[in-house]
Amino acid sequence: MNLTLYPLEGLPLVTPGDDLPALITDTLTQNDLSLQNGDVLVVAQKIVSKAEGRLVNLTTVKPSEAALDYGRMSDKDPRLVELILSESREVLRVRKNLIIVEHHLGFISANAGVDHSNVSGPWGDAKDWVLLLPKNPDASAAHIRHKLEEKFGVRIGVLIIDSHGRAWRLGTIGMTIGLSGLPGLVDLRGEPDLFDYRLRVTQVAASDELAAGASLVMGQAREGRPLVLARGFPYPLREGCLSELLRPKEADLFR
Amino acid sequence: MNLTLYPLEGLPLVTPGDDLPALITDTLTQNDLSLQNGDVLVVAQKIVSKAEGRLVNLTTVKPSEAALDYGRMSDKDPRLVELILSESREVLRVRKNLIIVEHHLGFISANAGVDHSNVSGPWGDAKDWVLLLPKNPDASAAHIRHKLEEKFGVRIGVLIIDSHGRAWRLGTIGMTIGLSGLPGLVDLRGEPDLFDYRLRVTQVAASDELAAGASLVMGQAREGRPLVLARGFPYPLREGCLSELLRPKEADLFR
Repeated sequence: MNLTLYPLEGLPLVTPGDDLPALITDTLTQNDLSLQNGDVLVVAQKIVSKAEGRLVNLTTVKPSEAALDYGRMSDKDPRLVELILSESREVLRVRKNLIIVEHHLGFISANAGVDHSNVSGPWGDAKDWVLLLPKNPDASAAHIRHKLEEKFGVRIGVLIIDSHGRAWRLGTIGMTIGLSGLPGLVDLRGEPDLFDYRLRVTQVAASDELAAGASLVMGQAREGRPLVLARGFPYPLREGCLSELLRPKEADLFR
Repeated sequence: MNLTLYPLEGLPLVTPGDDLPALITDTLTQNDLSLQNGDVLVVAQKIVSKAEGRLVNLTTVKPSEAALDYGRMSDKDPRLVELILSESREVLRVRKNLIIVEHHLGFISANAGVDHSNVSGPWGDAKDWVLLLPKNPDASAAHIRHKLEEKFGVRIGVLIIDSHGRAWRLGTIGMTIGLSGLPGLVDLRGEPDLFDYRLRVTQVAASDELAAGASLVMGQAREGRPLVLARGFPYPLREGCLSELLRPKEADLFR
């Protein structure tokens, strides 16, 4: 079956307290699209964080000693570093302009996902505002999903994505940070291959594959298309969560 | 613009010496599809390797001392390990049933991409045959591209992908191993964001995002749909190559 990714145009700028499911419904209508059983709605982290009020003004942040140290090591604003540390369980690597951490949500991440771009706040200078990741992206996805399922009378999935760098490759790709109603991981172990062997180690990170494809059509700069409707997701929908995708620390290949 | 991924049905089993561009042309026709300017054809590594005769029968391989050692450490067949080492520049990690290497092609890879599944050979027992990656996947992509461009009178991209694991996440995703006629990396640094800041660190791994999305519709097990036509790739086509995506060793974050 074909997979079609529809980037939605015309979502207004999202601000804290906005009713995101209602905005998404309006945007779908504006794009002459409705939701069908089996669709997955892919949502950029930024609009979820903004709706949930995860904006912080750096002038209100007092850096700790650790933040000052890591700020010197990374050449980053120590107030920003303070926020990165507060979002993290552990610092793994520090380089110029880059602090790699294990985020409280359990994944490895550059700068704990704390971001300056495409952000402004309700007062002061836009350059002082930064955005944290949603507190519980699986719950955010479930909230959006249930509101949309109710509205459209369908069974769908909702996937929240962010752009992640990679240790050995340049460039970012879209990755899952939260999901509801679709599989994160699809286990094909035991399925026969073309010659009737059992595939031995194949687990497909299905929601990460969709996250990357959807990210491609979202664009990163001025475009501002943070919603993508995916029609034709090839695996059966089921309950799912981010932790399916996280390698247990003891099986982490690089610590 | 929408991105549509069409998995092509009906490609026959590929064997060494097959004319892959001709087989692809026939398969497109069978699927009532033609190629248009701006399309990207995504091709699974396996059929490229098979057409190029990269099959090896393990009964013909004599393991070296190093292969015997790594075989004991990883619990892998030392003949398979011998092939992995011969495809690699450096061994980075060894775990049970897993040897992580830097491949001669420059990327980090599990088991150097040497694979058992969906493989059989011209003689003997299917379980003795394994498949190596193409010798020069960029050149393979260029060959397929130029034949198809000539045939259809269009300007397209060709992307060769394989499934890769990740250090901190479970499950595999499709990744670029070779390309021709499309960008690997798209540099958005200097583009304005929604609030007219310059995006500071955004380079998008566009071909990896497409690789992951296309991999989602290829399936991994019996399905055997190793060709995906991508229509609506959102960046301008240009010449491109795998090395755009590879982080220089001195900037590698984990060695």
